[in-house]
Amino acid sequence: MYDAAIVGTGPAGISAALNFKLHKKNIIWFGSKELSTKVEKSEKIANYPGLSMISGSELNARFVKQIEEMDIELTEKLVTGITPTGNGFMVLGGNDIYETKTILLALGVVSAKGFPGEKKLLGHGVSYCASCDGFLYKDKKIAVFCADKRFEHEVEFLAELAEKVCLFTTYKDIEINIPNVMHFNQSIKEICGQDSVNKIILSDGTEISVEGVFVLRNAVAPSILLKGLKTDGPHIVVNKNMETNIKGCYAAGDCTGRPYQLTKSTGEGNIAAHSMLEYLSELGKQA
Amino acid sequence: MYDAAIVGTGPAGISAALNFKLHKKNIIWFGSKELSTKVEKSEKIANYPGLSMISGSELNARFVKQIEEMDIELTEKLVTGITPTGNGFMVLGGNDIYETKTILLALGVVSAKGFPGEKKLLGHGVSYCASCDGFLYKDKKIAVFCADKRFEHEVEFLAELAEKVCLFTTYKDIEINIPNVMHFNQSIKEICGQDSVNKIILSDGTEISVEGVFVLRNAVAPSILLKGLKTDGPHIVVNKNMETNIKGCYAAGDCTGRPYQLTKSTGEGNIAAHSMLEYLSELGKQA
Repeated sequence: MYDAAIVGTGPAGISAALNFKLHKKNIIWFGSKELSTKVEKSEKIANYPGLSMISGSELNARFVKQIEEMDIELTEKLVTGITPTGNGFMVLGGNDIYETKTILLALGVVSAKGFPGEKKLLGHGVSYCASCDGFLYKDKKIAVFCADKRFEHEVEFLAELAEKVCLFTTYKDIEINIPNVMHFNQSIKEICGQDSVNKIILSDGTEISVEGVFVLRNAVAPSILLKGLKTDGPHIVVNKNMETNIKGCYAAGDCTGRPYQLTKSTGEGNIAAHSMLEYLSELGKQA
Repeated sequence: MYDAAIVGTGPAGISAALNFKLHKKNIIWFGSKELSTKVEKSEKIANYPGLSMISGSELNARFVKQIEEMDIELTEKLVTGITPTGNGFMVLGGNDIYETKTILLALGVVSAKGFPGEKKLLGHGVSYCASCDGFLYKDKKIAVFCADKRFEHEVEFLAELAEKVCLFTTYKDIEINIPNVMHFNQSIKEICGQDSVNKIILSDGTEISVEGVFVLRNAVAPSILLKGLKTDGPHIVVNKNMETNIKGCYAAGDCTGRPYQLTKSTGEGNIAAHSMLEYLSELGKQA
């Protein structure tokens, strides 16, 4: 069992990971080796103490180097579900289940609330994980919502299995050119179905029959990720120690609310890690 | 009237100052041009995201450079009193009074609770400011508590005025060699007097008659600085937005509690500045 799982490789996750490493904790860290797209794409950062007028890509490169130097490992899997077990959490990362005593949600802002019907039909035709559930849709017609170019290989994987893929993206320079993938310019308005998905409705009212919908976002909305987690709109409710309402679960960075600032995120990641270290120490005494 | 006053030049104050500058606010920033002694003296900092294994003095030098580049001014005065005025605060810095709409306390940890009698006799023989009150003790016998080498010039200034100075320090390599300054190895246990100071009692029980006591610390204890400020032991109580119980007054960094971490401090400075910017914007709408 891991001491801590960190979900997210933005500034908050990075800050926390550094501290766990220094305290020699056994952690699993989920995210992307590219770390933070948001940081990477920032033009100029003028208010990060100690690094004057640094470009986002330069700062992200520094983060990458620092993690390498400190020999911190990353697991490139999307976390799609977290379940409290009484003495910790089970985390579903890709196809695998990981057990951890504590968990830090450093998800960034998950702006999308999810499509109407998405939450209800999750596990009944709606999936967040191509490699996990793709095989269920062999020779079937599916819709795929792809929010980031990074997930295009998952779309390609699905296209190999499915008969037809109706593709919806939030960006323009799509690099997929496969005969059975049809790209739509409209957006998905609703995912429909009684016991399982049977169609989607588009923004212009068009209805398309599909048997499955894959939603490929950078992160899953917090309240879907972990049932019972207290949220306020798109934000996870935390106290000053970065504790959520669920014991052993902490949150830091943009997902806890404004200001959406790099320095706030690294600060909260630091606080969260220290709260978790204290909690782990208490757990150790009880054992 | 200033938009904001920042008290303290540690990581929290620096982080806040950068943000106020970017938002073109009119601020006054009290502290030392050397910024943070605590950062300066840190041997190696291993958990500051973006700067791998940096020495404290190197990081402090980066802070100094960043502030210069951004053309942020510093006022080298010790703040010894803050008074709410209804629409802001009056700040006593050295001998001068400054008016500000909001104030950020970024004091660091003021470990000392103050000597018994200190708070009661403040302004009645107890002073925090040599240049302000020194003239009151011309040809008199005084005690001086000096917590930092940086204040030795104030001790020298007082020695020129007073008949005799009984000096107490928290460090060893004292560089004062003046005939009327007598250095004691004991510590001050209590400051005594009915209406005004008449003696001090030392740790070994010795009593010394004095007419004044100068207490030269890096910062004044928060509850002495601003009456009515809610504290919890040595810490200022804040919420997640870094608001204290007094409207318009915010706190950030070590003074708000553990973990005493650089990254926590910069993060809180950032959050505080953004809360203050929001508050100033609200004030602007009401005006």
